[in-house]
Amino acid sequence: MTAMPQSATPTSKIAALAEKARILRIHSLRMTTAAGSGHPTSCLSAAEIMAALFFDAMKFDPKNPNALAGDRFVMSKGHAAPILYAALAEAGVIPVSRLMTLRTIGSELEGHPTPWIPGVDAATGSLGQGLSVGAGLAIGAKRQGSDAHVFVLMGDGEMAEGSVWEAAEFAAHYDVDNLIAIGDVNGLGQSQRTMYDHDAEVYQRKFESEGWTAEVVDGHDLNAVLAALGRGIASQGRPHAILARTEKGHGVSFLADKDGWHGKAVPADLLVKALAELEPVPAIIPDDGKSCARKSLAVPPDFAAPSALTYKLGESIATREAYGTALARLGEVNERIIAIDGDVKNSTFAETFQKQFSDRLIQGFIAEQNMVSVALGLAAQNLVPFVATFACFLARAFDQVRMAGISHSNINLCGSHAGISIGEDGPSQMALEDLAAFRAIPGAAILYPSDAVSTEKLVECMARRPGIAYLRTSRPKTAVLYANDEKFPIPGLKVVCKSAEDRATVIGAGVTLYEALKAADQLKAKGIAIRVIDLYCVKPLDTAALLENVRATGGCVVTVEDHYPEGGIGETVLAALAEAGVTVKAAKLAVDRVPHSGLAPELLEKFGISANHIVAAVERLAK
Amino acid sequence: MTAMPQSATPTSKIAALAEKARILRIHSLRMTTAAGSGHPTSCLSAAEIMAALFFDAMKFDPKNPNALAGDRFVMSKGHAAPILYAALAEAGVIPVSRLMTLRTIGSELEGHPTPWIPGVDAATGSLGQGLSVGAGLAIGAKRQGSDAHVFVLMGDGEMAEGSVWEAAEFAAHYDVDNLIAIGDVNGLGQSQRTMYDHDAEVYQRKFESEGWTAEVVDGHDLNAVLAALGRGIASQGRPHAILARTEKGHGVSFLADKDGWHGKAVPADLLVKALAELEPVPAIIPDDGKSCARKSLAVPPDFAAPSALTYKLGESIATREAYGTALARLGEVNERIIAIDGDVKNSTFAETFQKQFSDRLIQGFIAEQNMVSVALGLAAQNLVPFVATFACFLARAFDQVRMAGISHSNINLCGSHAGISIGEDGPSQMALEDLAAFRAIPGAAILYPSDAVSTEKLVECMARRPGIAYLRTSRPKTAVLYANDEKFPIPGLKVVCKSAEDRATVIGAGVTLYEALKAADQLKAKGIAIRVIDLYCVKPLDTAALLENVRATGGCVVTVEDHYPEGGIGETVLAALAEAGVTVKAAKLAVDRVPHSGLAPELLEKFGISANHIVAAVERLAK
Repeated sequence: MTAMPQSATPTSKIAALAEKARILRIHSLRMTTAAGSGHPTSCLSAAEIMAALFFDAMKFDPKNPNALAGDRFVMSKGHAAPILYAALAEAGVIPVSRLMTLRTIGSELEGHPTPWIPGVDAATGSLGQGLSVGAGLAIGAKRQGSDAHVFVLMGDGEMAEGSVWEAAEFAAHYDVDNLIAIGDVNGLGQSQRTMYDHDAEVYQRKFESEGWTAEVVDGHDLNAVLAALGRGIASQGRPHAILARTEKGHGVSFLADKDGWHGKAVPADLLVKALAELEPVPAIIPDDGKSCARKSLAVPPDFAAPSALTYKLGESIATREAYGTALARLGEVNERIIAIDGDVKNSTFAETFQKQFSDRLIQGFIAEQNMVSVALGLAAQNLVPFVATFACFLARAFDQVRMAGISHSNINLCGSHAGISIGEDGPSQMALEDLAAFRAIPGAAILYPSDAVSTEKLVECMARRPGIAYLRTSRPKTAVLYANDEKFPIPGLKVVCKSAEDRATVIGAGVTLYEALKAADQLKAKGIAIRVIDLYCVKPLDTAALLENVRATGGCVVTVEDHYPEGGIGETVLAALAEAGVTVKAAKLAVDRVPHSGLAPELLEKFGISANHIVAAVERLAK
Repeated sequence: MTAMPQSATPTSKIAALAEKARILRIHSLRMTTAAGSGHPTSCLSAAEIMAALFFDAMKFDPKNPNALAGDRFVMSKGHAAPILYAALAEAGVIPVSRLMTLRTIGSELEGHPTPWIPGVDAATGSLGQGLSVGAGLAIGAKRQGSDAHVFVLMGDGEMAEGSVWEAAEFAAHYDVDNLIAIGDVNGLGQSQRTMYDHDAEVYQRKFESEGWTAEVVDGHDLNAVLAALGRGIASQGRPHAILARTEKGHGVSFLADKDGWHGKAVPADLLVKALAELEPVPAIIPDDGKSCARKSLAVPPDFAAPSALTYKLGESIATREAYGTALARLGEVNERIIAIDGDVKNSTFAETFQKQFSDRLIQGFIAEQNMVSVALGLAAQNLVPFVATFACFLARAFDQVRMAGISHSNINLCGSHAGISIGEDGPSQMALEDLAAFRAIPGAAILYPSDAVSTEKLVECMARRPGIAYLRTSRPKTAVLYANDEKFPIPGLKVVCKSAEDRATVIGAGVTLYEALKAADQLKAKGIAIRVIDLYCVKPLDTAALLENVRATGGCVVTVEDHYPEGGIGETVLAALAEAGVTVKAAKLAVDRVPHSGLAPELLEKFGISANHIVAAVERLAK
């Protein structure tokens, strides 16, 4: 324990907070026993911390707990949800009567926090993400002139996650001094003691090595906790970490610091014993059945139309380059747009935006997990974040994107350098599984432009659309195909080449669209007409337009994608056709094994997605 | 710079190593200029480090550089591949004549290291993964009685990745004192200066806070580098980190510490100038066109048949429980099997294995990225690792799994608690995108058992099979369906219920298989016979058996999965049927939105994958 001077706190305040902690413990125990599951002991270790936060340190409006002006709280150890709900209830954010609905199908109070609950900005429950979310919230507050603070409660087990230390280095680098991290060091993990048990000083040293101020306190000593929070709030120039040494199950003799109680509700008979130690126990307020869920989550604020495009048909521009131009153009009419870079801004072209708006690009360095969760925090402050890096490296943040999906967060992702068309750098730099992974995020829009005009239009759609959007850009330069006033609705597709004699529909996107157009020329010379579709919106799929075109070409369809065969364009298209009962003659061209370094055209040929392969497939199917 | 005593190194040795460093620089520059791309300046900063490692510190057999007895090297900053290849060539591992084939389609020397190259244990190029791989290699050496050391070279930019610090805490916790980390602190990232520029002492403090010994040296001072490596090799009880302050592009005046040269080959005219600073320049040895790639990568060593199973038909056992039992049973006959846990061993049932073989479970704590890369290192020492955690949390390591795929690594993953059938914990704990993500890993087997017998048999398959395998287990108890001697080949499926009158094929796996069987009973009562398929092997798909069954039921097919609609069972099945030209009447039942907490049966009903939904789908299609 560090010997930091404790400020004197009036006894009456401490008594009131101790009473709150007692009530939070009672709620947490009763809620989980009623639910028959949950993590009561992980709540009990944090009771004094939660009481000190919600009933003293934090300044917020219970009627509008997600407001810019108010302090925010992130329950990074999401399994301690019951005590968060109890604190929100006692603070007047949600009705106390709802607490006993915990974990039931009709309740907004789920097993782990979800953002339908007022006061919750991000779904948590996948550990180690909350500090990054908190950093995003804190930066979002500062950037918009709010002097609010952000408090993040982490478990000690979760501090083994590397993402915590990405957040720590990031917050220190940017002097995010309105961020306060609290570690609930109860020493017990799920299945055994944590890596450092109660040695909270290890975490203190780690935070200090990252540039934070940090201290260890007794997490059950309200005076100590309040004083530490006060130091965190007063901190100037550096974020502050409080490592609170606690006992899991504290307050109930047979639970305190006992192994074997993680994630277990106390059985009804033992609950009686537990509550007897916490007397007097208030009566349960019956639920009135009314949900207190937020009506809807935030929609990105509207903005004026950006300047018109001035591309020339046939002009050669990489979609990744157009991404940067688009962001800069939108930045002029939407000051909420913020770019986040992973030290590849000269490759993703996020630097085009930075050159125009130098203070609106946040350098996230090479730490993709933190970038995505910071974006989630910024979006929860009604900013419009665009995270860009190589598409393959967004795989590093797949769990963060998964949680952003559950959070219904308005974040935008751009993955550049997709597929084998990057050439010489080799397989580690080639995203070939990104469509599969990101398509599986509920509600996500998966956009894959082929030219500069469609890229620009789709980036604008992303900034206006609620939910997650993923834009896949390519390294090679490609010809402008569309007029500057072309529209690209979501969902949608473009028929790029069409005749009444078409004998097959070829569906591509990005570099493979140009291979399809080359194939169309080659086949035309052989007397075979084909229809070529630009599937710029991979998800949601425009099934009606797809069916219409494939039916018009007698069910003959070839998909071609710079992606592995699983979960990409081919599977979504063919499964949709099968579900619609269309009989097809189909070929699914994709990269079917780990690729190799080489020149892009060589690789398209070798790995089966070039114009020649399309020609061969069409000839085989359409004969 | 730390003031550590330098051991006296003979001048002749230093001169010889300086000469090697000079040659490595020349190779790196020439190779990348010839290739027209690459990262020469990232090589030049590491020339003294590489010379000291490969020509003094490391003890290994150039004819067998991946041997257990020999020291290993992991080039975590994979973009510095050219200097690794140059060092391997100068050390006699690969012919010098191959160097100039860098990055060409016919060369094993790809843009970033891949394991076909002798001396390379893991593909690198996604930053921040090498230290975990090194920890796995080092532990794998120790466990098998080798006193070899493992050296990992990282860039400073990559040390922003949280995964590096997961590896650091892990290696310190397990006293992996045969692991030496070297940070090439050249201060320059891709697009700007790194977070800490040349402040190498920050990294030193971070490593020290994790429990390492650490020191800062001048990375271009061979005496200093050798002395530091000596201290690393001599270290007892703690891993050692060397933070080498260097200059990017060092050795060539117009490249040294200059921005704007990341990832750029030196143009031919400037190469002449560069080489003039490095004279005398040896002649280029012409390539003879022969690949020096390893003939094949490791196959898991064979082992005796495990004891027979003794399950009773109808007995109720969760597949996650059977996983633990299987691992323990296999552990008896295969001493190479190692379990890796993320502090959920009581949920995944890896604890069953641990109870029997307490020293063969490695506790990885809550740090999934590190767990997967450590497994890769263990597999490269011919151990057979099984990593288990909640399936949703394996998403945290998706990029590591991606790189393991490129590495053709023999790692086994088990994801428990898949899908909404976990119930009350809510969406953050429900893996619903794991099939989509892991199916897209080339060569991966995706296994999804429904009962204890199939689980046991599939775990044995995993231990024998080269490449990545992913096993998806479920939380609820399910009835044993198969006899103890049933075989489960890969690929394959089981027809669980069949008659000559079947009017539809219903395909499930895990909990949905039992819903399908319930639906079969309900439909039978209505006079409709259906065929039920257990798709225990989702990838590779047994297309022939699938087609046979679906054709036998007139093309009428219903897929039902505890997974999102994208990239899972429905899409793989329907796309395969479409590709085969089968006309189907199909329904694809899946969880089509973010789910909720609740009781498992309630959730199956609410989210559309219960027996009732299957009955309705069959009635609609088969009428």
